[in-house]
Amino acid sequence: MKSYCVGVDIGGTSIKLGVFTGRGRMLGKWEIKTDKSDSGSHILDDIAASIKVKLSEMGISLEEIKGVGMGVPGPTMADGYVPVCVNLGWKAVNPAKLLSEKLGGVTVKCGNDANVATMGEMWKGGGKGYKNVVLFTLGTGVGGGVIINGKMVVGNRGLAGELGHMTVNCDETDSCNCGNKGCLEQYASATGVVKVAKRILEASDAESGLRNFETLTCKDVFDEAKKGDKLALEAVETLGKYLGMVLSYLTLGFDPDVFVIGGGVSKAGTILTDVVRKYYEKYTVISKEKAQIKLATLENDAGIYGAAKMAISR
Amino acid sequence: MKSYCVGVDIGGTSIKLGVFTGRGRMLGKWEIKTDKSDSGSHILDDIAASIKVKLSEMGISLEEIKGVGMGVPGPTMADGYVPVCVNLGWKAVNPAKLLSEKLGGVTVKCGNDANVATMGEMWKGGGKGYKNVVLFTLGTGVGGGVIINGKMVVGNRGLAGELGHMTVNCDETDSCNCGNKGCLEQYASATGVVKVAKRILEASDAESGLRNFETLTCKDVFDEAKKGDKLALEAVETLGKYLGMVLSYLTLGFDPDVFVIGGGVSKAGTILTDVVRKYYEKYTVISKEKAQIKLATLENDAGIYGAAKMAISR
Repeated sequence: MKSYCVGVDIGGTSIKLGVFTGRGRMLGKWEIKTDKSDSGSHILDDIAASIKVKLSEMGISLEEIKGVGMGVPGPTMADGYVPVCVNLGWKAVNPAKLLSEKLGGVTVKCGNDANVATMGEMWKGGGKGYKNVVLFTLGTGVGGGVIINGKMVVGNRGLAGELGHMTVNCDETDSCNCGNKGCLEQYASATGVVKVAKRILEASDAESGLRNFETLTCKDVFDEAKKGDKLALEAVETLGKYLGMVLSYLTLGFDPDVFVIGGGVSKAGTILTDVVRKYYEKYTVISKEKAQIKLATLENDAGIYGAAKMAISR
Repeated sequence: MKSYCVGVDIGGTSIKLGVFTGRGRMLGKWEIKTDKSDSGSHILDDIAASIKVKLSEMGISLEEIKGVGMGVPGPTMADGYVPVCVNLGWKAVNPAKLLSEKLGGVTVKCGNDANVATMGEMWKGGGKGYKNVVLFTLGTGVGGGVIINGKMVVGNRGLAGELGHMTVNCDETDSCNCGNKGCLEQYASATGVVKVAKRILEASDAESGLRNFETLTCKDVFDEAKKGDKLALEAVETLGKYLGMVLSYLTLGFDPDVFVIGGGVSKAGTILTDVVRKYYEKYTVISKEKAQIKLATLENDAGIYGAAKMAISR
């Protein structure tokens, strides 16, 4: 009987793998290095070999695997095709098809890593119990994923879930990495929060605990805000305003059940969800009832959970 | 054989009805008045009676009807339940279920009128040939509908497609009908375009053809803009900027194939789609390829086409 599934989360430096039961109980997880030499052409061989070794150690045969899911750090089409993945050196490949061949024909599915992580948070994380879920990953940048009716939304050009690049401030003079000015990422990423805080410090003469840090981090900003530091709170409000606005956009676009916030910045906890909720409600006057706002819970395992779930979903 | 379907589009003053083949050829359309007396309790009887009479005239029996679809001017849940419909006086009804009983058990489906119109434009209008479609209806207000993978997106609270109430200008001081400030509707509806134009006229001493109109209309603004009137062009640019921004949001959210623009304002034609495209591209730097922007083509028939299509879709 095909009782198990495997989740693979390919990153630029390491590849995370996990074996799960069909109901989502994790039986084991491990990591291997990402060998990006020769245009990343060894990656899938390494993954196949590692899965075979691990399954054999666990006493599970390939015949018992219902499917293998794989998260890729780049745009991935609905059929698993990857036009280009700068992070791995891949160009015009269908890694799902190739890995399936290397695993004796096991079903393999492939998705963008942010979408796959969203699937994971829906299955066993902050979005558990819901079928319409949006995940924001607030890290160095801002990524995201969208699930509607239990299915990952990939979009026509694989752009679905690029939530960090919505223009939230037309008056911004600095450029985002994407070339646009005023993207959500410029205010809601860890880097963005620090940049906003520094601007606020420069523009003000007021005392602030933030002035005591030689190298200011996003965590410092939130820690000082929790102590009531006014300028730190201002940076947190800026994040809340713009992220709350984007939650409002998505609600008026397709009205999900729950927003899940993950990534390093989300370690700030309820101060983050509270400020986002405040602005989300301010900008969504049209409905009294609002979507839930929750923190992600799976951290770095969201990718392998989600990949495994994708593998066994229709 | 069940070869036909019926589309019903319920409005506050009249109800449009149409009979179609399963492939979407319209065999006949007609209208009846909307009787809102007694909390709208006669509406479904009137519809049932009218359908029976018309089908009998056309020599089609109820047994040949695969389904009847109905667009309702208010929030409609995924199962067809209407919590409240101010425009018709309805409260807590399932009109689909009730109409089905009145039509001897024929399958009846029910959706929000804007979503249903989107379905129509996808089937036989500006979105023909696509499966991921967003419709904007720029009329007195701004409505919309979202279709992903060929299916209407209703959302958790029936808010999906309320595109007119996205906050596009945080600096706005005037209130939208919804109570928020700076909604898309305040700049992209017919009313909004006129209001924006009047503001521009007041703020400027420049000559403008717009000053010659006693009662300025949206059409006047576009007509003058087409002649090159600078102040009129400014109002058109304002619409383009905010609507283009919202197209960008939706692309980064779920990346549709095509945006279809309908409603009275869309009669302006390509001047409208051109200016919207300009800003859509400006704000969506992350991808070179963009979604199509097209004009709606079905006008007032979008609702009956879409309702009929919904009736025969899974």
